[in-house]
Amino acid sequence: MDSVSFGSDNHSGIHPQVLAAILNANEGFCPAYGDDPLTIKVLEQIKELFGGNCDAWFVITGTGANILCLQAIMHSYNAIFCAQSAHINTDECGAVQKFTQGRLKPIETPDGKLTPKLIAPHLLGNRDQHHSQAKIISISQSTEFGTLYTLQELQELADFAHQNDMFLHIDGARLANAAAALKCSLKEMTKDIAADIVSFGGTKNGLLCGEAIISFRPDLTSAMRFYRKQASQLLSKMRFISAQYQAYLTDDLYLKNAMAANAMAKLLAERLQKIPEITITQEVAVNSLFVVLPRQIIEPLQQKYHFYTWNEEKNEVRLMCSFNTTETHIESFIQDLKALLVVKSPHR
Amino acid sequence: MDSVSFGSDNHSGIHPQVLAAILNANEGFCPAYGDDPLTIKVLEQIKELFGGNCDAWFVITGTGANILCLQAIMHSYNAIFCAQSAHINTDECGAVQKFTQGRLKPIETPDGKLTPKLIAPHLLGNRDQHHSQAKIISISQSTEFGTLYTLQELQELADFAHQNDMFLHIDGARLANAAAALKCSLKEMTKDIAADIVSFGGTKNGLLCGEAIISFRPDLTSAMRFYRKQASQLLSKMRFISAQYQAYLTDDLYLKNAMAANAMAKLLAERLQKIPEITITQEVAVNSLFVVLPRQIIEPLQQKYHFYTWNEEKNEVRLMCSFNTTETHIESFIQDLKALLVVKSPHR
Amino acid sequence: MDSVSFGSDNHSGIHPQVLAAILNANEGFCPAYGDDPLTIKVLEQIKELFGGNCDAWFVITGTGANILCLQAIMHSYNAIFCAQSAHINTDECGAVQKFTQGRLKPIETPDGKLTPKLIAPHLLGNRDQHHSQAKIISISQSTEFGTLYTLQELQELADFAHQNDMFLHIDGARLANAAAALKCSLKEMTKDIAADIVSFGGTKNGLLCGEAIISFRPDLTSAMRFYRKQASQLLSKMRFISAQYQAYLTDDLYLKNAMAANAMAKLLAERLQKIPEITITQEVAVNSLFVVLPRQIIEPLQQKYHFYTWNEEKNEVRLMCSFNTTETHIESFIQDLKALLVVKSPHR
Amino acid sequence: MDSVSFGSDNHSGIHPQVLAAILNANEGFCPAYGDDPLTIKVLEQIKELFGGNCDAWFVITGTGANILCLQAIMHSYNAIFCAQSAHINTDECGAVQKFTQGRLKPIETPDGKLTPKLIAPHLLGNRDQHHSQAKIISISQSTEFGTLYTLQELQELADFAHQNDMFLHIDGARLANAAAALKCSLKEMTKDIAADIVSFGGTKNGLLCGEAIISFRPDLTSAMRFYRKQASQLLSKMRFISAQYQAYLTDDLYLKNAMAANAMAKLLAERLQKIPEITITQEVAVNSLFVVLPRQIIEPLQQKYHFYTWNEEKNEVRLMCSFNTTETHIESFIQDLKALLVVKSPHR
Repeated sequence: MDSVSFGSDNHSGIHPQVLAAILNANEGFCPAYGDDPLTIKVLEQIKELFGGNCDAWFVITGTGANILCLQAIMHSYNAIFCAQSAHINTDECGAVQKFTQGRLKPIETPDGKLTPKLIAPHLLGNRDQHHSQAKIISISQSTEFGTLYTLQELQELADFAHQNDMFLHIDGARLANAAAALKCSLKEMTKDIAADIVSFGGTKNGLLCGEAIISFRPDLTSAMRFYRKQASQLLSKMRFISAQYQAYLTDDLYLKNAMAANAMAKLLAERLQKIPEITITQEVAVNSLFVVLPRQIIEPLQQKYHFYTWNEEKNEVRLMCSFNTTETHIESFIQDLKALLVVKSPHR
Repeated sequence: MDSVSFGSDNHSGIHPQVLAAILNANEGFCPAYGDDPLTIKVLEQIKELFGGNCDAWFVITGTGANILCLQAIMHSYNAIFCAQSAHINTDECGAVQKFTQGRLKPIETPDGKLTPKLIAPHLLGNRDQHHSQAKIISISQSTEFGTLYTLQELQELADFAHQNDMFLHIDGARLANAAAALKCSLKEMTKDIAADIVSFGGTKNGLLCGEAIISFRPDLTSAMRFYRKQASQLLSKMRFISAQYQAYLTDDLYLKNAMAANAMAKLLAERLQKIPEITITQEVAVNSLFVVLPRQIIEPLQQKYHFYTWNEEKNEVRLMCSFNTTETHIESFIQDLKALLVVKSPHR
Repeated sequence: MDSVSFGSDNHSGIHPQVLAAILNANEGFCPAYGDDPLTIKVLEQIKELFGGNCDAWFVITGTGANILCLQAIMHSYNAIFCAQSAHINTDECGAVQKFTQGRLKPIETPDGKLTPKLIAPHLLGNRDQHHSQAKIISISQSTEFGTLYTLQELQELADFAHQNDMFLHIDGARLANAAAALKCSLKEMTKDIAADIVSFGGTKNGLLCGEAIISFRPDLTSAMRFYRKQASQLLSKMRFISAQYQAYLTDDLYLKNAMAANAMAKLLAERLQKIPEITITQEVAVNSLFVVLPRQIIEPLQQKYHFYTWNEEKNEVRLMCSFNTTETHIESFIQDLKALLVVKSPHR
Repeated sequence: MDSVSFGSDNHSGIHPQVLAAILNANEGFCPAYGDDPLTIKVLEQIKELFGGNCDAWFVITGTGANILCLQAIMHSYNAIFCAQSAHINTDECGAVQKFTQGRLKPIETPDGKLTPKLIAPHLLGNRDQHHSQAKIISISQSTEFGTLYTLQELQELADFAHQNDMFLHIDGARLANAAAALKCSLKEMTKDIAADIVSFGGTKNGLLCGEAIISFRPDLTSAMRFYRKQASQLLSKMRFISAQYQAYLTDDLYLKNAMAANAMAKLLAERLQKIPEITITQEVAVNSLFVVLPRQIIEPLQQKYHFYTWNEEKNEVRLMCSFNTTETHIESFIQDLKALLVVKSPHR
């Protein structure tokens, strides 16, 4: 067996039911590029799940979903507000700038969450020809810090966006984890709070690959299919994304996977809280933990378990659970960590 | 069963051995984004297959492979010569222009094949600041017309490119079909004729998705990994592309699939040649046929078999075979076609 | 004195009245970037001249005017039809692709003029996600071949564009020459034929630099000021463009300059037509002539007069007159040309 | 007379000697696009002024100079460090992102000046494929806060850049003001401290329009002429920029203009320092002052003098002098300001 990974939820593979769906879809010939009946059907299911009066498309990767959501509702002279820690700002090698030619305006946050109060000071002088015109507030739900916006906070951001002639985009690579944690529906978290465009991620929650984009402004996003092709995000054998999503929606698998991952993170947090040498630095709202470890045990522990150092200086690491993290993985991790604490404790 | 499709080789699904490889790779945790041992190993195999002294990367789609091959060796002020019928010119919704900001210079050809003679007249006035600077000759092997460059023709194009300070790019979405038809190795068709950058397609030949890029100018393409991320072509669960390619290379599966598809096209051609009402318009070198049918049978035939009209005016259609086209499919198609000819003959 | 140039109308300098206007504008302080009263006033004059219900902006260069006219009404997934000989296609080093990320679809023409008939065959299959979506017909009035669209032809192109969900753009770098030749107003040639966006050039007709853009779809072009800044086409000391245009409009100077240039071209044509060794290859509608000369006199003549070889193979040269070309220049040119014909005649 | 402006140095017009040069250049015909002898000669003078072994080009606007300097030495996956207050970040409507598709990484500074210490923390994790690759440190000399880098500080930034595989770009829109203040040559401030690419502004210091770009890495910037055309920054009647620069260099006019502007700013500072209600917030190193005024006098004063509020909240305004600011302007401004202080003082 490979070593257990708390490195990322994309270190896990494909959920068995999703894999079974790929197998089932591998029958005979099928039109490509989304013109097949399965794709059409599953997209309808997704639109219904998000409350209807919306449009939906499949894309391949999370970065693809983000650049397309943004491109569809902006121009090159626009600016996008996002948290400093946002995936679009830190982890996509400038894909947003490359594709949209627009500008990111990252804002420092303590916990990965934007608020109207944090954004407001950056809106001054907004309509002058010398300045990029703010057009989008882009947030991640859940955030890259594993934190969550409440429905109330989402609503306030959407209202603030619309009052200022902007749109609200939600990077939902982990939208299922957020729904599981908030015990609300996908519709309540998106359409009902007046979000404009969102992604509904699959890859980090048990799919081989696949993300869905949902637009609540179909009037504005009719060019999406052209942008998707330009972004090289149109999979030819589309049936295999659609089949995965069909399995993902069946009996709320997306929710079950997310609940499992969240529960494991909670369990891990409970175990870690009991260890005095360890500090949890962010609220554990979904499936990731940010933890300060004694420096001397980080590397030895990484030899047995895969995880990333988040903040070198502060000895802060990120531990992430996924749908196939098990209690055994957690207990074994805790046991090994404790053993290292005994051995490596510098003052013994 | 879905109706049989001669619409495209991507209307077929996943080859069983490739699917088995996906299943096998779905074990435990694995680093993402290509940092896993399998990916590293399979890329080494590919580099060896192409003769070494090259670099290789996996991407997700054919359009992704094309824009990345081109971007890696050009700037926005450059121009790319391609055939009018080239996929990058006709079927990618301007993805090349979107990503590279450069210019395509499509050239009319009778058979989808560029030659030095066709390109030469467009090279005049080449270094003036008012003109896009020609930098790449981009060809497809096999071509979108199902034709093939001989090794000699490839060598001449590469030499011509280099003599004029240009590079030779090969869109190899169907490179395996070409190798099968020319009975040569991938190395002979690329490295040995001095190509600069090529793709080696998987999707159209039995993979769920996946293409490989091979650069014979690693000195020039060291930024590929950044461009790949910017193009949203970096799959997070990369092991599943690598596993597919491992199966694809094992016992020359890529070649066997291509040979099967080519053989079925040849069989179909033989059957069609015997029918006097039908004209084959292009040499059947690989797995596609271009055929003029009596107009009155096209639509009825399309009700049973999926295929595309290529040239409305000329009643020309494209018939494409893939790894899982069978003799039964061919015979049944011929039978139905003949029946329609009898019934639909206008002079009866 | 420098040698006389028939090379281009931008080989001439600044018209004395335009230069005087620059001097007059150089008084005291003035807000920059177009916020000055003179700019506002002259733009109003221009809007009135073009029939009102339009919007207008100043830019610096002809290439700037073109990329901004196009960008303002298109997206990256759009295509622009233009003549093969169009300035945007042949002489701007791919600036359109760089700025808009879109696609040019150049069409071969005998005389630099597009027609609905020439464009229609390229409209097939128009709405598929794999294809750049045709959105603009871009023409030059007068054309790069010195030919002219009649008002009737312009109207037909505009109608054809609108019937096919496209816009009509007119590159009017030499719009004044066209108005002078057609003896029509600028309004009749643009607003009245239902053009969507046009430029009204100054540089080639006596200005130091400066072009105006006029949009007849102000509803669609409200972002122009942002794109203009992004294109680095917003002159800080804008008053100096506005002052030039004020002079340009005063007593129809733009028309007088154009009439002078056109008249000189006509005179030159008359003189050349009398020489049997010489063939004029295009109608002389405005201020340029395309002429086949005996090969042996081209270079000797270029030693005394600046002009460009247009088609090396055919011994075709371009001769261009401008507002300050004089009868003396013409007569001297004809005399020298005749002398060379005598001396250089190969059969003597 | 228009009201006196301290709004910007581009609110002034053309210096008489520069205007005279435009008049003189307006003789006869002249090749366009920089192929004229005057342009070639003046560019040689500029190269010599900057110490030789460099390349030089004329462009039209300051924004044009910036996007071209950056584009010439970067790719879309690169990032540019700049001060939060940098012109490229705050005042160009995202032209850098539009043209280069790259990323700006603005850094907060107290005084508009970057230092290695401020940049260093942003260099971590630099070579991962998920991150934009830092490639350029872009500074303004003098800065947008009217502050100056010493030669020592410049050298340190250049060294730091090169040690980290980056380039140093200097936005020299006000390079002359910096040279005047530091009493050093242009060469000492650029080539000698190992800058890689710089602009040498004319517009803000007495030209109608015109900026020069100087590259000390001609090996890397050979494509500049293509990018310049793509940026629509190639003036057709180039002789008029060259003529202006010739005048600008003659008898060090650029230096005299800058010294005059700087001296007026110093005089204004001296006068203002004596008024207790007023605080100068930045060192007055060149030709601009940042001043906190009592709120109640700002608007009344703006009715007589043009100047901008810099920081609404702090009642901070910017006052800028230019080559044609006179002592009379200053004294009259001070007198009016004092009068307003008496009248408007809220507690009287």
